[in-house]
Amino acid sequence: MSTVPHLTTALSGPLLDLERQILGAMPAVEHWLRTQWLEHATPFYASVDLRNSGFKIAPVDTNLFPGGFNNLNPEFHPLCVQAAMSAIEKICPEARGVLLIPENHTRNTFYLQNVATLQTILRQAGMNVRIGSLLPDLAGATELELATGAKLLLEPLRREKNRLKLADFDPCVVLLNNDLSGGVPAVLQNIEQAMLPPVFAGWTTRRKSRHFAAYSKVAKELAAVLGIDPWLIDPFFEKCGLINFKERRGEDCVAGYVAEILDDIRAKYREYGIKDDPFVIVKADAGTYGMGIMTVKSPEEVLDLNRNQRKKMAVIKEGLEVQEVMVQEGVYTFESVNDAAAEPVVYMIDHFVVGGFYRVHTERGKDQNLNAPGMQFVPLAFAAPSLPDPEHPGALPNRFYTYGVISRLALLAAAIELEEMQAEIEDAVPAS
Amino acid sequence: MSTVPHLTTALSGPLLDLERQILGAMPAVEHWLRTQWLEHATPFYASVDLRNSGFKIAPVDTNLFPGGFNNLNPEFHPLCVQAAMSAIEKICPEARGVLLIPENHTRNTFYLQNVATLQTILRQAGMNVRIGSLLPDLAGATELELATGAKLLLEPLRREKNRLKLADFDPCVVLLNNDLSGGVPAVLQNIEQAMLPPVFAGWTTRRKSRHFAAYSKVAKELAAVLGIDPWLIDPFFEKCGLINFKERRGEDCVAGYVAEILDDIRAKYREYGIKDDPFVIVKADAGTYGMGIMTVKSPEEVLDLNRNQRKKMAVIKEGLEVQEVMVQEGVYTFESVNDAAAEPVVYMIDHFVVGGFYRVHTERGKDQNLNAPGMQFVPLAFAAPSLPDPEHPGALPNRFYTYGVISRLALLAAAIELEEMQAEIEDAVPAS
Repeated sequence: MSTVPHLTTALSGPLLDLERQILGAMPAVEHWLRTQWLEHATPFYASVDLRNSGFKIAPVDTNLFPGGFNNLNPEFHPLCVQAAMSAIEKICPEARGVLLIPENHTRNTFYLQNVATLQTILRQAGMNVRIGSLLPDLAGATELELATGAKLLLEPLRREKNRLKLADFDPCVVLLNNDLSGGVPAVLQNIEQAMLPPVFAGWTTRRKSRHFAAYSKVAKELAAVLGIDPWLIDPFFEKCGLINFKERRGEDCVAGYVAEILDDIRAKYREYGIKDDPFVIVKADAGTYGMGIMTVKSPEEVLDLNRNQRKKMAVIKEGLEVQEVMVQEGVYTFESVNDAAAEPVVYMIDHFVVGGFYRVHTERGKDQNLNAPGMQFVPLAFAAPSLPDPEHPGALPNRFYTYGVISRLALLAAAIELEEMQAEIEDAVPAS
Repeated sequence: MSTVPHLTTALSGPLLDLERQILGAMPAVEHWLRTQWLEHATPFYASVDLRNSGFKIAPVDTNLFPGGFNNLNPEFHPLCVQAAMSAIEKICPEARGVLLIPENHTRNTFYLQNVATLQTILRQAGMNVRIGSLLPDLAGATELELATGAKLLLEPLRREKNRLKLADFDPCVVLLNNDLSGGVPAVLQNIEQAMLPPVFAGWTTRRKSRHFAAYSKVAKELAAVLGIDPWLIDPFFEKCGLINFKERRGEDCVAGYVAEILDDIRAKYREYGIKDDPFVIVKADAGTYGMGIMTVKSPEEVLDLNRNQRKKMAVIKEGLEVQEVMVQEGVYTFESVNDAAAEPVVYMIDHFVVGGFYRVHTERGKDQNLNAPGMQFVPLAFAAPSLPDPEHPGALPNRFYTYGVISRLALLAAAIELEEMQAEIEDAVPAS
């Protein structure tokens, strides 16, 4: 019963109320999503980190430069290829050559396997795919050997006027797999080729708070379709600017919102009879890799940060200083794999769910960020087929469906977020 | 290395030259196909029977009302669902309700399983799907139990003005899984809802010769992309009208074309040094289910048909008389499953290859029609993943890819065929 592949989740036991409601409303949900995709162009790809507390399921991070395609079960590859074909047909049907621009992590063999997997998927979708590196010191074409024995050829980027090229390769489309945390390099600015996702989707300009604002709107709409309280799929959040953790600037704003959101959660927990201890997550409004994130259970914790904690919160990827912070309702993760806290990560290409895995961390609690050194990835598998008809008694419902719905809702929010950014950019440029 | 799922074929041994050429030209082939899909709307679904003689691969039948979804490996269902979503989004994004109209074979449990599988796929794509029966004596909603234990609910069709309905169901779109061999029932004529495929795709009006004429054109174009002789993917054919096998009318036309095509094949076999014995297939130009088909190796065989053979050729499904005949180059099948002659059948939804199986017949030779009582179906499986990159040494090439290309070429021909028929219908109706 899903537009989403039927994957085995770690959850067992009877369906939760929220799952039941979402599964039961499936045709209405799919119809609503279809109408949304008519109005909003989806990003080329995305991954969404989810938290399922049992009573609540929500996205906690939506990544527009997903880096874990290598963690997907290889069985999902046909789905990835089909979805990539759909995306290419919509965005650039005439394209043959794709230039893939990865992160500069040449020693991170896991990340390199992600790049290799993406290259394979796009090749299987019928594209010529070559990899253009932003590494400033890449002398010439450089072959890297992966742990699997496969090889990855990095080639130096060239720019000719407003086109990105490789030595003997003039691609039609540029696929970014680099989140541009360090800024948009000059070589990528004002490129005439289609760039997927656009450079402004990078962390130089993207903000989590804008994403979650868009998410709140679409969550309300979907909640109306489902006839549920939007809070069940949407965490409270607020944003503080002008922060400087090192200089203890702006902490009052953060502590204030922590208090406010904790109060809001307490009220909701009372309403639903939930006995858990509310917590909030304080995180950098821009940035990824699980850096600049902390779990807080009282406003005092924010005011009492020690030197080390401040240092950790102050700097994110590529040494960027944190100046804006998001305070967000924490969602316990109810799922575990081998007794370790786990959260599902759902991968999408175009608007299709193409697979997922669990992020598992044996050293972290169910109220903590799991995207941290020491995390492991447990690929999901297709569930044993439950033919002929999952709507008939005896067939197992697709528990993964709910994750697919919430992930696509986050994807829709990202689509709207990028549209808004695009409109702002166009407004800022005087018409000539 | 494919846009086509990597399925295990029965073929083993080194790649054949033709396979190697098609696999090697993959990006160019996919680019060409993508541009074709921009120009031609694909039928909702199709299955294609292929014959692979080793030196030649060609479609022998393109079915626009495929009846074997139950024979696909259940592992392919996520691909079917994703492709069905793509099709629905393109054709009728606003649709929620689908009315599926099957054949009237209520005692063919295999066919009923096909209907149940289709219903499941469409439900998984988020649609409300109910089954409207053309059975004239269906008193009310009737539940049929399938061999799997699942149930199928057939409901009587209702017509209100120009809308097809069920008792409490007003569908947005009608999906035909009935090839209309017995004519277009009045209840299906001039329906205002979208009808997929259109009624004129049924065998009342469809002709194989028109399909293969369209196929020849696109095969020439693809052959140019591949730099190969189009004959390697396109069988010779001719058409005779005004046939009456019972009254021995029109046999001269058939015998004449048999002689001509055998000569043409002989010339090609000499050119390529092929030692096989040429043969042709004589078949009804309209119709399916493997009825009205014979293998012929000389023109005399056509003139010397005995009473029984005439009778067999004279009548096809639903007792229709054969009046038009196609004479087509026979293509040996080089493939076998457990020493029995086998031919691949490839299933597509929208323009995506979603799976396939082998049709196997232990009582038939490699120069005979295998679509006959006693045939069996052997589902294909996904090949063991050959990660990280099939383009790198050591990875198995996707042999199934070639079948996916030729099948999509036949699908493209069907798209063009339907466009031509649509244009003729529009020309025939005076503008009002």
